[in-house]
Amino acid sequence: MSANQDHQAELLELGRRAKTAARQLAQLSASQKNRCLEVIADRLMTEQERILAANAEDLELGRIKGLNNALLDRLKLTPARIEEMARGLRALVGLPDPIGRVDSSWLRPNGLEIRRVRVPIGVIAIIYEARPNVTVDAAGLCLKAGNAVVLRGGSEAIHSNLCLAAIMQAGLDASGAPDGAVQVVPWTDHACVKQLLKLDQYIDLVIPRGGESLIRAVVENSTIPVIKHYKGVCHIYVDQAANQEMALKIIDNAKCQRPGTCNAAEKVLIHRDLATAFAPRLAELFHQRQVEMRGDPAFCQLVPDAKPATAEDWTTEYLDLIITVAVVDSFEDAVAHIATYGSAHSDAIITQDKDAAMRFTEQVDSAAVYVNASTRFTDGGQFGMGAEIGISTDRIHARGPMGLEELTSYKYIVLGNGQVRA
Amino acid sequence: MSANQDHQAELLELGRRAKTAARQLAQLSASQKNRCLEVIADRLMTEQERILAANAEDLELGRIKGLNNALLDRLKLTPARIEEMARGLRALVGLPDPIGRVDSSWLRPNGLEIRRVRVPIGVIAIIYEARPNVTVDAAGLCLKAGNAVVLRGGSEAIHSNLCLAAIMQAGLDASGAPDGAVQVVPWTDHACVKQLLKLDQYIDLVIPRGGESLIRAVVENSTIPVIKHYKGVCHIYVDQAANQEMALKIIDNAKCQRPGTCNAAEKVLIHRDLATAFAPRLAELFHQRQVEMRGDPAFCQLVPDAKPATAEDWTTEYLDLIITVAVVDSFEDAVAHIATYGSAHSDAIITQDKDAAMRFTEQVDSAAVYVNASTRFTDGGQFGMGAEIGISTDRIHARGPMGLEELTSYKYIVLGNGQVRA
Repeated sequence: MSANQDHQAELLELGRRAKTAARQLAQLSASQKNRCLEVIADRLMTEQERILAANAEDLELGRIKGLNNALLDRLKLTPARIEEMARGLRALVGLPDPIGRVDSSWLRPNGLEIRRVRVPIGVIAIIYEARPNVTVDAAGLCLKAGNAVVLRGGSEAIHSNLCLAAIMQAGLDASGAPDGAVQVVPWTDHACVKQLLKLDQYIDLVIPRGGESLIRAVVENSTIPVIKHYKGVCHIYVDQAANQEMALKIIDNAKCQRPGTCNAAEKVLIHRDLATAFAPRLAELFHQRQVEMRGDPAFCQLVPDAKPATAEDWTTEYLDLIITVAVVDSFEDAVAHIATYGSAHSDAIITQDKDAAMRFTEQVDSAAVYVNASTRFTDGGQFGMGAEIGISTDRIHARGPMGLEELTSYKYIVLGNGQVRA
Repeated sequence: MSANQDHQAELLELGRRAKTAARQLAQLSASQKNRCLEVIADRLMTEQERILAANAEDLELGRIKGLNNALLDRLKLTPARIEEMARGLRALVGLPDPIGRVDSSWLRPNGLEIRRVRVPIGVIAIIYEARPNVTVDAAGLCLKAGNAVVLRGGSEAIHSNLCLAAIMQAGLDASGAPDGAVQVVPWTDHACVKQLLKLDQYIDLVIPRGGESLIRAVVENSTIPVIKHYKGVCHIYVDQAANQEMALKIIDNAKCQRPGTCNAAEKVLIHRDLATAFAPRLAELFHQRQVEMRGDPAFCQLVPDAKPATAEDWTTEYLDLIITVAVVDSFEDAVAHIATYGSAHSDAIITQDKDAAMRFTEQVDSAAVYVNASTRFTDGGQFGMGAEIGISTDRIHARGPMGLEELTSYKYIVLGNGQVRA
């Protein structure tokens, strides 16, 4: 208890520093911010040895703790991965600065001119798990949008993260950016995260990145607004008017190209009229790709080696080479199925029927609704945002891929010449 | 405990109904939604007697409970107030429907066309205090933007609110709108609010309206995103290059026209170079208007009947005929003072110096930053939004006045012809 209270005081100080830094960051020009990003990128390259040494400490402790190989691999930094981080920062330099842009302006009958102008959000906390590259990627995006950032990564990566933060802050110091712009929380106990999530007087937004239980814990404990990503239970609906070759190509890509991602397809719905012809071809594809099939009774009848799906299967995000397939009686049933079991992340229709395509885009309420394309495109880079800090499954502030624009807020500037309210 | 668990089951059912209604509301056309608003407006007028009878019950219970006259007045409905509610709904009919509007669209190099389209948020819960007119105003705004609404007003107004909700739902039924589009939570215990705030599987946004303690309680208990209004500690900075007559006129309006509002001025900062000339004129104005003055030592020296301000005064929202005045040494000190003690709501500079005006709008980070105009204009109606559901002091999703636009979200529609990700 007394240890936590010590952190409390230090956390308050960390919050205060971030808030002060945010005020100054908001005033930096695009070229000043770009200079910061370049200096940090340079330093990551010149300080490679130091970063690898810190990372080696984390890896050693991870091995002692018995982390599995997949986790150790996510934790591991290499010269190539460090170069990738530096390249990511340099890519941000080329993106337009959203800050200061006038969204819109209008004149009121009383002569007041109102302008809505983009400003940074302020202080953003990122809560994440093992990957130390998030430390640099997230900090770079926050900085480019003029925000101070508080980073709280997993305890496994603490040496790497502290080292990366020190290098970034030194780069910022050297380019005249404020102290406190990038801070890593050095305490790795859970009580400290809970305290961090109550610092609503200093932190304006929390973005958790990780598994559902991490995100749920953040939502339950935070008094700061949270933008989150729960899960992607993405559907491909093969309409009666689908081009079957196109459907197979898209399903192959959406399911198999990178099954561990949130925008990978987890469910296929087939219109009844197409099922007899299409189900065997789909089964052939999945056999080839070694995808485990689970199905509703109608699909299992057409594809005997598909396992019967349980109730749970329809809402499960496998992130693996498993898929659940249903035969639906109609377009309406497909839309209703997606509304009931989906996660409103990314859902697609495959059809040559323009009317059905349009109705699908109107009636399916997902962050990204696709016509004749793979759900794998739900990504800031693929959307042309240049970079992304994550994908939001919320409906407030940002939905779908979040780029620089989504890391901003706005203010109203009202220009008068003595107007008063009647 | 068992009583709460009963509510739990009923609350879940209420949430489910709202979510189902939201799906259907999202598909209504502008003219269908307008028809709903008109039918409800008509019914409020024809059912006046029923509303007044329900309201009389609340007033009677309020008198027995010993509510003070101010609260009883806020609770009271009259034919004029009912007519005002109906007029408010009819005014919404004339506003453009934000739903379905394409914010932007672009083509990717691979041929994908991406459109960002406005959609409703979904289910919005409003938690508020005594005024029964909020029941109709908030429901109307939510409906026009295609959202289902869950209303939880104060226990003092429960009979009025249930009656208004029944009339609204009957109007919706008659115009073919879905059941569950407008629901009042009939249970008035606090445990029920806490349970409501955990229904994040059904409710997409909570907007609390009321005093700071209500809002704080909502933020602490909610797992649903909250957009809130804490307080308005609004400043008027009288620059060295101010037109003094204009400054007096604006301060008079900002402080005295309606001191109980969140956009009323609570603090005045005077540039040192102007203080000797301006302070006595300001004091004369405040004497005339019977405004109690509190000041820093420099102001108290110039205006001896001003009380010395305490540390607390600088951050207090009086909502009353009280003001705190400081003499600042420079423009920079004024900006720093506002950043330290303000609430980032609405702050103004009075100056003829265009450069100072521009720097003020850049450096002061408030929801509304004014040049030579009264802070009292921070209002959806005054900004030309047509109506407002409240003013946000958050930096996420919406900042400042919230109109119909701020009650919407968006989705991406991605149109392809077989694209897959490489």
